[in-house]
Amino acid sequence: MQEYKPVSAVVIRRLPRYYRYLTELLSHGITRISSKELSTKMHVTASQIRQDLNCFGGFGQQGYGYNVASLHKEIGQILGLDGGRTMIIIGLGNLGKAIAGYSSFSKRGFILKGLFDVNENVIGKEISGVTVRNSAELEDFVKENNIDIGVLAIPKYAAQDVANRLISAGIKGIWNFSHMEINAPNNVALENVHLSDSLMTLSCKIGRIQKEE
Amino acid sequence: MQEYKPVSAVVIRRLPRYYRYLTELLSHGITRISSKELSTKMHVTASQIRQDLNCFGGFGQQGYGYNVASLHKEIGQILGLDGGRTMIIIGLGNLGKAIAGYSSFSKRGFILKGLFDVNENVIGKEISGVTVRNSAELEDFVKENNIDIGVLAIPKYAAQDVANRLISAGIKGIWNFSHMEINAPNNVALENVHLSDSLMTLSCKIGRIQKEE
Repeated sequence: MQEYKPVSAVVIRRLPRYYRYLTELLSHGITRISSKELSTKMHVTASQIRQDLNCFGGFGQQGYGYNVASLHKEIGQILGLDGGRTMIIIGLGNLGKAIAGYSSFSKRGFILKGLFDVNENVIGKEISGVTVRNSAELEDFVKENNIDIGVLAIPKYAAQDVANRLISAGIKGIWNFSHMEINAPNNVALENVHLSDSLMTLSCKIGRIQKEE
Repeated sequence: MQEYKPVSAVVIRRLPRYYRYLTELLSHGITRISSKELSTKMHVTASQIRQDLNCFGGFGQQGYGYNVASLHKEIGQILGLDGGRTMIIIGLGNLGKAIAGYSSFSKRGFILKGLFDVNENVIGKEISGVTVRNSAELEDFVKENNIDIGVLAIPKYAAQDVANRLISAGIKGIWNFSHMEINAPNNVALENVHLSDSLMTLSCKIGRIQKEE
């Protein structure tokens, strides 16, 4: 496997967006793109793009642009999308069901292996082709199936407890939607999703536009 | 109303997180905090915090720290949370239902005014205390009720069309969950939510931890 220079956390946060755009370009049969074109499409400066993409190898060539397919493949590798990450969802309320139904996750190599809930009315039901299990089976399932990612779609009062159980069972990453920042040791990757942050940002943008008018 | 210096887009993106922490501090009865303490809690450097918060006024005092309540209030104003923003959700699938059920949004001053769907089986049902209307009524409702924010929880093939209808009816901001970046004129605020970006970032973090081990 190719060795990469260390990529900063800020650049990592931008890579999924590059990946999405490159996927779109590929689907339109576009094989080559200049940093200028990419910059127009993505509303980022061309020099920012060159800087970002040079971080992990010189894909671009002066006057030639980027090879879309190979850049897409390389970024996919850096994002760990080539190996296939196994995933379980804990909590099958509306949000858990919505996440279970996202076909775009499986397209990107995330394999939904299990669903868990504590609610007797939900346990045993089939959602997106997967049967909901009793949360009591959580640790055994994670260990036996070598699960990479646990998705927390549960109320915040239960979040840290379930996270601890996943961590003790050897989970590698936690995707947390529980409206509460949880703690995890350094060897467990963690992404806290705060939808309200995005809504507040939108509200702030509205206020700025109104002031300008 | 107090005048603020222009705040950069990057700082704006961090303000919701400050706001969340300050809300938490207030709920624990904490009235004062130093930038150092805030920095430990938020995993940001103290100088970053001072820089961010100085952008829109000098709240902190050397050796005294920040007054939690007034900082909370001022950031809330910048985020436009004091006036109350009216909101409608278009699309009452699992995700739309999940968003309609988030009590934390109403706590932050976002008022759910309407729900819209095209599905006859959903129209007329009550979700989170609001009756689902036929999407055909969308433009009239937005105009008559002076709606601020339209939440798109619909499939991507319908997203730009519904966005255009909202825009023509005078919507001020669009919160887009439709897995597709939509276009809006400069006088309409736009936030595209890409949940898969967060999942890919998590996957990338897992890969980096594995390489270190």
